[in-house]
Amino acid sequence: MKHVFAELITIGDEILYGQIVDTNSQWMSKELDKIGIKTVRKTTVADTEVDIITAFEEATTRADLILITGGLGPTNDDLTKPCLAKYFNCSMQMNSEALAEVTAIFERIGRELTEINKQQANLPTKCTMLSNRVGTAPGMWFKENGKVYVSMPGVPHEMKTMMQEQVLPKVQEVFDTPTIYHKLVKTIGLGESWLADKIKDWEANLPENIKLAYLPGLGEVKLRLTAVGSDLPTLKAAVSHQIELLKPLAGAYIYGYDKDTLAKVLGEMLVARNITIGCAESCTGGALASVLTSIPGSSQYFLGSIVAYHNKVKSDVLQVSNDTLESHGAVSEATVLEMALGAKKVLNSNIGVATSGIAGPTGGTIDKPVGTIWIALAYQDHTIAKKLTLFKDRGINVKYTAHAVLNLVRQTLLEMDGEKAIN
Amino acid sequence: MKHVFAELITIGDEILYGQIVDTNSQWMSKELDKIGIKTVRKTTVADTEVDIITAFEEATTRADLILITGGLGPTNDDLTKPCLAKYFNCSMQMNSEALAEVTAIFERIGRELTEINKQQANLPTKCTMLSNRVGTAPGMWFKENGKVYVSMPGVPHEMKTMMQEQVLPKVQEVFDTPTIYHKLVKTIGLGESWLADKIKDWEANLPENIKLAYLPGLGEVKLRLTAVGSDLPTLKAAVSHQIELLKPLAGAYIYGYDKDTLAKVLGEMLVARNITIGCAESCTGGALASVLTSIPGSSQYFLGSIVAYHNKVKSDVLQVSNDTLESHGAVSEATVLEMALGAKKVLNSNIGVATSGIAGPTGGTIDKPVGTIWIALAYQDHTIAKKLTLFKDRGINVKYTAHAVLNLVRQTLLEMDGEKAIN
Repeated sequence: MKHVFAELITIGDEILYGQIVDTNSQWMSKELDKIGIKTVRKTTVADTEVDIITAFEEATTRADLILITGGLGPTNDDLTKPCLAKYFNCSMQMNSEALAEVTAIFERIGRELTEINKQQANLPTKCTMLSNRVGTAPGMWFKENGKVYVSMPGVPHEMKTMMQEQVLPKVQEVFDTPTIYHKLVKTIGLGESWLADKIKDWEANLPENIKLAYLPGLGEVKLRLTAVGSDLPTLKAAVSHQIELLKPLAGAYIYGYDKDTLAKVLGEMLVARNITIGCAESCTGGALASVLTSIPGSSQYFLGSIVAYHNKVKSDVLQVSNDTLESHGAVSEATVLEMALGAKKVLNSNIGVATSGIAGPTGGTIDKPVGTIWIALAYQDHTIAKKLTLFKDRGINVKYTAHAVLNLVRQTLLEMDGEKAIN
Repeated sequence: MKHVFAELITIGDEILYGQIVDTNSQWMSKELDKIGIKTVRKTTVADTEVDIITAFEEATTRADLILITGGLGPTNDDLTKPCLAKYFNCSMQMNSEALAEVTAIFERIGRELTEINKQQANLPTKCTMLSNRVGTAPGMWFKENGKVYVSMPGVPHEMKTMMQEQVLPKVQEVFDTPTIYHKLVKTIGLGESWLADKIKDWEANLPENIKLAYLPGLGEVKLRLTAVGSDLPTLKAAVSHQIELLKPLAGAYIYGYDKDTLAKVLGEMLVARNITIGCAESCTGGALASVLTSIPGSSQYFLGSIVAYHNKVKSDVLQVSNDTLESHGAVSEATVLEMALGAKKVLNSNIGVATSGIAGPTGGTIDKPVGTIWIALAYQDHTIAKKLTLFKDRGINVKYTAHAVLNLVRQTLLEMDGEKAIN
């Protein structure tokens, strides 16, 4: 078994101009990854002969499998077929099988088969035709000097159908592919470099066939473990074993795996404990409630949020005392704690959480610059407040704060579990 | 003036493995297009030295401007900086300006600067450092043999901030680009084909050098006018003239231009009229408040929102009668009207708005399928309720509803202006 490398070539000006996002290549590389083929490069080129042929020439130096999408339409700006014929040094010829399929499609939809449509069945002589069950442009399979070139339509559902039904099975026949297993470990609360420092010995001792990557996001870092071998259960067990070794080092920061989100994980924790949550939001302005309610079924544990932008709403609805607001200000530990308690009481929830801060871009002072944000939690007889010192962009400060609150709740529940276990 | 060509290089296994979609390169090519620079290729390469350096070598044969994203983190799998140093045949050196910036960031957030973090300021000697205002990895600008190479972080908001504030202005200084003037006309309330039909004669009579594109979005359609020439004031005047001709045809649907958002335009209307708004949200779950408070300075007119997910919050806090909830249900005209009135009263605002519906994916019934959503407004003695019948995705239903509420307020205020003018 040797490594099989793939290169994806997308042909089309509309992607280079930024008019559409190329989602095909992500889907294709995921599918290849599942059968152990590593994508080594993705290239998008313009609808011109020289660019297309250069891309073919470059790809052949790097990859065993070259998947090409786009440029197969019946109009003059679609150049993929003539470029393939030129590249493989062959002529174009009407393919009778392809013509029969195109003719059948037009009969089925009751439209006249024009000369332009017939041209879709005109293919380079060196290719094996791939049927298009959901469109009119057939695909093409070329094999030369041990390399495979596949040309497919750019329309996503046509490409996907052709890949799943024909290309992937054929590729697995031709190449002896390894098995690859990916696992994402999702952490929050520690920056990339601190996390790297904490787990450096573990990382250094990973077995040869397991690679680690750091994928940083907003306030969180994902660790991607990639194991390569020949047998999936063995790889899964090896990765599980490494995660068990990782837990004592980074356990408190790990909130989930693979497709888990912090809001989803917290929701499951609340459901498991049969407790509810309510919010009091100032600087997050509804974004905290919004991320909590983004989870289907969140009405099981989320009761509501009082978005108290104006101080009068803080005092009237959340029952924050005017004394506190006057002597400490709205952005203060004292206020945010009263807000959390107010949310708990007014919304009649088990947990109350609150945010108050200066999201920016204006409103900062020397004592409380933009990015000064307080968050708080009230649950049973616990109250906790925490100060965040964030960056400068309003939108980012808000999102970051909402996630920090979710993590504060998560951590508090875990710590209380720990205390219970000890007592 | 000659054509300027750009190539985009994205570095990162996570894109090749299909774990994330590369949205950066679409955004970048759009921005380049706006200043008349044509993207000729997009390439994604793996985190290996040979792949990265080969991509640099190939790009230089095709492009004048090479924009590189990714691979700038502080960990060992980030290779962009050493590769740039090798490619430009220079050494790495601690950049004092970059070190000062990284140090300042760590001081501000009150964390210790570790050796790994310091390494972020270690840069190839031939580069000009680009500040990263919203992250810790600085960017790099290289100019050699008339070609410009720019390396930026892969985190989207860091890359975007760096592009807008530093890279695009510098690129326009270095290259002689044609003058292109874009103007966006933003409409809401009419689908793309209906709008196109309304303005088809105007569109047919646009001058040669002004092109029109329809950019449909969530409940809105943007019209992009692109004028190409050599003199900006002339282009601006020509586009303004066309917009004056458009207004009698589509005026009621036009809510703004360029960077205007519905929330910003509505905020300006509220400030101009010196009136305040408060919300009662069920199905939007905080998203309505969130979009209103996304506007800096929104505390001038936004007082707060009661996110009443649980019916008890609707009755306890918003004073919706239990009779109404029981006989009509939470998703009903009667309930949403009482919610709007409740928001107005409890938050003490001039305008009260409300949402209640079934966002999905579950919770639908035969009478009230997923996507059945009521919105309402109360202002002075006006009350209006409106039923929306939306699509099936939870996230889209919520966003669409929030925008529909903003537009309901905008239209109501405009209609009341009209009535006042008549009386």
